[in-house]
Amino acid sequence: MARLAGVSRATVSYVLNKATAVRISEPTRRRVHAAAKELGYVPHAAARSLRAGHSRVVLMPAPGFPAGPLYHRFLGDLQLALGRLDYTVVQYGSMGVDGDEAARAWAELRPVAVLVPGPGLGPQGVTVLKRSGARAVVTLGPRPVEGAHALLMDFEAVGHRAGSHLAERGRRRVGVVVPEEEGLAAFSAPRLAGVRRALHGTGAAVTELPLAYDEESAARLAARWPGLGLDAVFAYNDEYAMLLMRALQDAGVRIPADTAVIGADDLMLGRLLRPRLSTVHIDLPSGRELAELVDRAVRSPGTAPGTHEVLGARVVPRDSS
Amino acid sequence: MARLAGVSRATVSYVLNKATAVRISEPTRRRVHAAAKELGYVPHAAARSLRAGHSRVVLMPAPGFPAGPLYHRFLGDLQLALGRLDYTVVQYGSMGVDGDEAARAWAELRPVAVLVPGPGLGPQGVTVLKRSGARAVVTLGPRPVEGAHALLMDFEAVGHRAGSHLAERGRRRVGVVVPEEEGLAAFSAPRLAGVRRALHGTGAAVTELPLAYDEESAARLAARWPGLGLDAVFAYNDEYAMLLMRALQDAGVRIPADTAVIGADDLMLGRLLRPRLSTVHIDLPSGRELAELVDRAVRSPGTAPGTHEVLGARVVPRDSS
Repeated sequence: MARLAGVSRATVSYVLNKATAVRISEPTRRRVHAAAKELGYVPHAAARSLRAGHSRVVLMPAPGFPAGPLYHRFLGDLQLALGRLDYTVVQYGSMGVDGDEAARAWAELRPVAVLVPGPGLGPQGVTVLKRSGARAVVTLGPRPVEGAHALLMDFEAVGHRAGSHLAERGRRRVGVVVPEEEGLAAFSAPRLAGVRRALHGTGAAVTELPLAYDEESAARLAARWPGLGLDAVFAYNDEYAMLLMRALQDAGVRIPADTAVIGADDLMLGRLLRPRLSTVHIDLPSGRELAELVDRAVRSPGTAPGTHEVLGARVVPRDSS
Repeated sequence: MARLAGVSRATVSYVLNKATAVRISEPTRRRVHAAAKELGYVPHAAARSLRAGHSRVVLMPAPGFPAGPLYHRFLGDLQLALGRLDYTVVQYGSMGVDGDEAARAWAELRPVAVLVPGPGLGPQGVTVLKRSGARAVVTLGPRPVEGAHALLMDFEAVGHRAGSHLAERGRRRVGVVVPEEEGLAAFSAPRLAGVRRALHGTGAAVTELPLAYDEESAARLAARWPGLGLDAVFAYNDEYAMLLMRALQDAGVRIPADTAVIGADDLMLGRLLRPRLSTVHIDLPSGRELAELVDRAVRSPGTAPGTHEVLGARVVPRDSS
């Protein structure tokens, strides 16, 4: 390749490995890249990261919970933004292995940063990752973890907004859907706590409503509805809300006259139902903001881990509440 | 670590690198792993793959199209199944770079296999990947690519089933929704062709209906509806069908009396609408089958690439058609 480009082997190596310590003219750089392309050369990321002592890989474990469309859009944005900063984002299926155990598997890939969605990782896992060379560990979840940067997603606030809205509408017996699907407790428990806090001292009562995401489960709950005596329900998110609202309507419950219904996530489909579904709109952080935070943490690995609130929540009242 | 485990350094290396050529007793193996754990040792995947000449990484580029819930479930299954076969699945955001250009970026990670969802990769990209050491390249899409194993997803059949169903119901002027969102043409064009084939020779007419996935676009299309003179519509998938059906109902079009509506994907939410949405149910291959196919291809890299049909499609008639 050196011969084809008419330069020394060292120059080829500097250019292809993006060495920054050596000044190489732009025409030379272009000649080397052209020769590399002609010869079908592809650099070896692993070899390069061994030489550099670290990689440009940002590892994101795939979330251990059923992620909705909102999360997938957020993930796409983030990948794009990290890509623009010259990081390679790889998502890693953790396959049911949890937290600190999984951290060892992630560390094998020697990522320069790890971005962990959801709960599960503990201080021990953070230590394993840092010892293996990760310059930044960032968690995205309801609680900070020692040693890691924390992007706090305050799902309690989501429940609090929903509960306050229902109280303002004069509702006094409020059901809160708690999904039965595994892995969602970290999100549903704070939402429930938020509703309780919003209604605390108002004399209104809160009832937990376990619900699986299928029509049979919703029909069973709807059949029990008259006995529950509820005049409102916060249904965890829009998908559960759509499911439950339909089951209630089929069982003759009038929405919102008999029971007000509110979801969360502000999915477009919620606007297609009649009555239109009220919801809590959740503002996720922008991919660009988050990418810049990761980049800063990588550049200054000595900085003390910080904690940032990243979730905005506001009620979008429509016709169902 | 050798001292802590009371074994030679060579033995430590054999155990931690999972060398299979050397017989090591189970107690010794356990002692080495215990010592490694105590010392917080994490193997280096890149170094190991350099030694082995290949990795256990199966790379899956993230799809360049807005993937729906059906695809995400399929992906989760596949990751789980490949994990059970001791592969590490990494998903890679391709960030707008297409096909053969992207293949060079994927090759840098030296994956042992690459599983490409959707179209875009050409024979040149396959060559780059194989030259970089990938033992198997598998494409998941509407057409086979030279040099790669092909899992053919026959979306033409999805359109054909929908078209036949509408013809059987006596519909003669059939609209076919073509999403305006980028990256979906590879899926929508064969569906449209399938409807045309189903209606060929029946005297029925097919009208293409460009539609963006938002309420304004749907309302505009619904406002033009009387002038279009359509008595049926195949709406690409259930999400577009739910959007369009609501807009048509709001514009006073009776479903199915004036216009029959059918979607595709069999999403649960389609059953929640009134009338219940008819749909084409799509059977994706199971994650286990696909993982075993990848594994066979990796073990026998010399085998000629094969082509497998992996999509089943059948109409689920409900009340909207």
